[in-house]
Amino acid sequence: MKLNRTEKGVYAIAPTPFQDNGEIDFPSIDRLVDFYQDAGVNGITVLGALGEAPKLTTEEAEAVAERFISRSDLPVIVGVSAPGYAAMGALSAKVMSLGAAGVMIAPPASLRTDDQIVNYYRGAAEAIGKDTLFVIQDFPLTFSVIMATDVIRRIAVENENAVMLKHEDWPGLEKISQLRALEEGGKIPHLSILCGFGGAFLDFEVERGANGAMTGYCFPEMLVDVVRMSTEGDRDQAHDLFDAHLPLIRYEQQPGAAGLAVRKYILKRRGVLTSDAQRSPGGKLTETAKSEVEYLLTRVARHDPRAKLDA
Amino acid sequence: MKLNRTEKGVYAIAPTPFQDNGEIDFPSIDRLVDFYQDAGVNGITVLGALGEAPKLTTEEAEAVAERFISRSDLPVIVGVSAPGYAAMGALSAKVMSLGAAGVMIAPPASLRTDDQIVNYYRGAAEAIGKDTLFVIQDFPLTFSVIMATDVIRRIAVENENAVMLKHEDWPGLEKISQLRALEEGGKIPHLSILCGFGGAFLDFEVERGANGAMTGYCFPEMLVDVVRMSTEGDRDQAHDLFDAHLPLIRYEQQPGAAGLAVRKYILKRRGVLTSDAQRSPGGKLTETAKSEVEYLLTRVARHDPRAKLDA
Amino acid sequence: MKLNRTEKGVYAIAPTPFQDNGEIDFPSIDRLVDFYQDAGVNGITVLGALGEAPKLTTEEAEAVAERFISRSDLPVIVGVSAPGYAAMGALSAKVMSLGAAGVMIAPPASLRTDDQIVNYYRGAAEAIGKDTLFVIQDFPLTFSVIMATDVIRRIAVENENAVMLKHEDWPGLEKISQLRALEEGGKIPHLSILCGFGGAFLDFEVERGANGAMTGYCFPEMLVDVVRMSTEGDRDQAHDLFDAHLPLIRYEQQPGAAGLAVRKYILKRRGVLTSDAQRSPGGKLTETAKSEVEYLLTRVARHDPRAKLDA
Amino acid sequence: MKLNRTEKGVYAIAPTPFQDNGEIDFPSIDRLVDFYQDAGVNGITVLGALGEAPKLTTEEAEAVAERFISRSDLPVIVGVSAPGYAAMGALSAKVMSLGAAGVMIAPPASLRTDDQIVNYYRGAAEAIGKDTLFVIQDFPLTFSVIMATDVIRRIAVENENAVMLKHEDWPGLEKISQLRALEEGGKIPHLSILCGFGGAFLDFEVERGANGAMTGYCFPEMLVDVVRMSTEGDRDQAHDLFDAHLPLIRYEQQPGAAGLAVRKYILKRRGVLTSDAQRSPGGKLTETAKSEVEYLLTRVARHDPRAKLDA
Repeated sequence: MKLNRTEKGVYAIAPTPFQDNGEIDFPSIDRLVDFYQDAGVNGITVLGALGEAPKLTTEEAEAVAERFISRSDLPVIVGVSAPGYAAMGALSAKVMSLGAAGVMIAPPASLRTDDQIVNYYRGAAEAIGKDTLFVIQDFPLTFSVIMATDVIRRIAVENENAVMLKHEDWPGLEKISQLRALEEGGKIPHLSILCGFGGAFLDFEVERGANGAMTGYCFPEMLVDVVRMSTEGDRDQAHDLFDAHLPLIRYEQQPGAAGLAVRKYILKRRGVLTSDAQRSPGGKLTETAKSEVEYLLTRVARHDPRAKLDA
Repeated sequence: MKLNRTEKGVYAIAPTPFQDNGEIDFPSIDRLVDFYQDAGVNGITVLGALGEAPKLTTEEAEAVAERFISRSDLPVIVGVSAPGYAAMGALSAKVMSLGAAGVMIAPPASLRTDDQIVNYYRGAAEAIGKDTLFVIQDFPLTFSVIMATDVIRRIAVENENAVMLKHEDWPGLEKISQLRALEEGGKIPHLSILCGFGGAFLDFEVERGANGAMTGYCFPEMLVDVVRMSTEGDRDQAHDLFDAHLPLIRYEQQPGAAGLAVRKYILKRRGVLTSDAQRSPGGKLTETAKSEVEYLLTRVARHDPRAKLDA
Repeated sequence: MKLNRTEKGVYAIAPTPFQDNGEIDFPSIDRLVDFYQDAGVNGITVLGALGEAPKLTTEEAEAVAERFISRSDLPVIVGVSAPGYAAMGALSAKVMSLGAAGVMIAPPASLRTDDQIVNYYRGAAEAIGKDTLFVIQDFPLTFSVIMATDVIRRIAVENENAVMLKHEDWPGLEKISQLRALEEGGKIPHLSILCGFGGAFLDFEVERGANGAMTGYCFPEMLVDVVRMSTEGDRDQAHDLFDAHLPLIRYEQQPGAAGLAVRKYILKRRGVLTSDAQRSPGGKLTETAKSEVEYLLTRVARHDPRAKLDA
Repeated sequence: MKLNRTEKGVYAIAPTPFQDNGEIDFPSIDRLVDFYQDAGVNGITVLGALGEAPKLTTEEAEAVAERFISRSDLPVIVGVSAPGYAAMGALSAKVMSLGAAGVMIAPPASLRTDDQIVNYYRGAAEAIGKDTLFVIQDFPLTFSVIMATDVIRRIAVENENAVMLKHEDWPGLEKISQLRALEEGGKIPHLSILCGFGGAFLDFEVERGANGAMTGYCFPEMLVDVVRMSTEGDRDQAHDLFDAHLPLIRYEQQPGAAGLAVRKYILKRRGVLTSDAQRSPGGKLTETAKSEVEYLLTRVARHDPRAKLDA
């Protein structure tokens, strides 16, 4: 299984499960994979920023990727962002040999000018090798790197192994329209555009030309439904379902450890994770926050019974 | 009318209306004031970041403030953030003499350490004079300044004229709880905490101890209702109304010119503004974005008839 | 007197003199002008970042510019950087009517992508009007904006009134070479490149193709000599003089208030300024720092008797 | 050999030698160690930012550290900065088992508030274990983290294994004085303060209370001499030697790849490194820059014959 640039649907961004003592929780990885497959996603992305990848040792990162890949019947994308090309190339080679479908690369925060960003991705594309397909991650809020539409164009034109864009610029709707207009004009090869940012704009992103979602919202089955409905033209239905989840999407889409704490809490509540622990430095929900999440779940469940969780 | 630290309810953040040619549109200021008063807000805040204050000359800023103040029966807070204390002090003195209820001060982006922030506000409090009451604006996403809870405590303890907090940290719910816990422990005087960030977390902020909202969402009457319902304990009712608007709140809460374009567009659609123009460098909605906003309005109107606008 | 793109030599960056109580010290402005003229500079630049421009009100800024212009027989460039175009345009129009030779524009810290920077300068060039000649200020350390060489090219090609570059990128020597190579290739009109960054690389900058210095080092007569010697091919002589001053140049070239405190202290010691006060928030030399500066002056004076100051 | 908080003198910051093809050049490591020992330094610090540590894989980092440690008769400090504590702890444990004297920890760029920085170092101190002594690296220009003097105090008070400060704030002289004043007042345990920033302020840093230098200037024997002279009270002599090198120090102290290119070039010219290659993304001196360096070497050699290198 390899990535391809016509990919459509949903890739789930998987958290890395830890035990309360901070050790990696491999059985929860197995359950996560099963859970995502049952939800109907098209693939799984692991070791992203919210996968707490920077908190793992190299050996741990490889072990986590291996477990996800070996358990999954679906393509697995592995985040290989690293401070330098050597570590990126080594991890990439390792996970590709284990059966990853491709890798995801985020830009280091020091990049500023257009050329700096384009040059960085050129080097990265070489470091992983031209046979390794990769995802460009465009997430300015987290990475502090602003990629102009034209920068994405240049990266895609220069590097044949750039086949997918994890789009999470904010505001970002016009960028999708611009990229698709460039494509219509023959200025950029088709990229699979899957949207992140917690799914907070998914209702309109598909309408703008995105191919789906790549995010970690705790109800991936909703993402799958919304993308399908939207693709099939059931606009009102898609928005109805999306809007029912939006209060929770919004609550989960808090930056950093806070949002991840919500995500892990619900995945634990859903019986997928054994613990909602994050590795230090991390965060945990306060009792007040937990009660807010429970309240939101109850409210979502009025419209989507899948959100009805046993106490 | 002066600000006071027991203020509750909603302060509307007013945009600055421009004509299509970029000139200030004073008649629209009058209509804005009437509109906010009809919506039941408690006050109006002008010349904030989304009021395009940095794009005005000193004379224009004073003229805009004067028009709002003279038209309004409600207290008016004027943003006086400036690169230096002299301009801040001059504008503050001017608008207070015109009848402003107080001023709002955001930190310059260069501040990093706790002491730098506290020292900055000490100087600012002196620059405006101890008789001028002010609002601390805590908006890291826009101003790039991270204020620890303890920094807000120190500012409030040091400066008696600091009476209100415009809270728009993100994530920010725990910060409200922490500030109220400090207050219960006698560590900080009571501040009126009014929440911004487009209102995106208003449903829980009041429950956490905030006193209301200070934001520019294009349906201020909804903010008024939600704060009242939440304050009176009608939790489900408050969330129901809030959730009906959330898809539009989310769409308006896009950073920078994009979000402001939505806000101005709807205020024009509601007959308040003559033009949705922003001064350069600004933004305008594309046709696609307009149709998205219209679609969202239709959807909100199913639950809240006030969102039903004539075509 | 108007700026022109073939300008060579030294523009002195002037501090804004304050009295100890923070009021503007106009008599010291007169002495500063005379001092610079006696030092043999070609022009004076006022109201830059180290001129504490952001700490002045609009009226004060105009008054300071007017005093410099009216006293000076040399061209005066006025910094008009402002948060928005309206204030920039208004100040520019005012100082040009008073007889300024041109204006200087620094980019706001929020700019990141190439297009953002180019667009910003396009708007600025319009705001000041095409008849007002301007200086591009490229100082990433202070303004946090990274201008690629190609961005400077685009600004210069697009805007005929962009005639000069205040070059203070760091590292920056290759950028000068690149700009001159572009010019040889006919890709960019000739710009007068005057170098800042405290003069810390002036010895090589002229050799690389720069036309001189625009900086505020407290011995402008040395800058004049070094530029002349270097231009005339007296390489060793230029370096000998430069090196004798480098320990003090280095000490003065500390970012922010610290470096300005050194500069003002020495200008006071030289009898030019009445006070070395900075407006709040500013800095003052500690006694230890003063003694270090005095020691450095003594050491410079061994090679350059102009540094021998009466106690 | 373990670090201790009374360390005085010079720690050389070692580059990581690469072959032209990007492979690690181990024989050059051996020559580097011998070179530093011959220069009279007290210790060696490896795998810092200018050691291109982020460009190495974990295995490579360990191999480089091992080679330095096994060759050296002097204490070796190993940089273990990493995106997360797990990788930091693992590398630290490994190099300590190999005989490192201690480790050096720089803060991640995301840290802003005082508490965030203090908490980060608390976690780091735990991750490496209380028996592993560490160096706090305070280098805002490179790491974008501003450590108030009080933050350094808190880190030193909280963590007994914090025994040394690599001081390279800019401006930074007053910070040294403040730290020593805190120490005199019993507010902070004694730290060994060794100064970096290319040595650009070393002449005054020792006079302010620093214990020496930790930097990578290509003539470490000069650093050793200046620290010794300054410590012994030979002020003029120390400054004379320092000033003779300052033009080259200044040239080498250009941020990032540019400065490192100078350093590696000269170390190659001195016969220590086989190649001046940096790993991608890196930099190389242009021919013009090389000729500038050669010219500077000639000039330094007039005062310090050790700078006279064969062509």
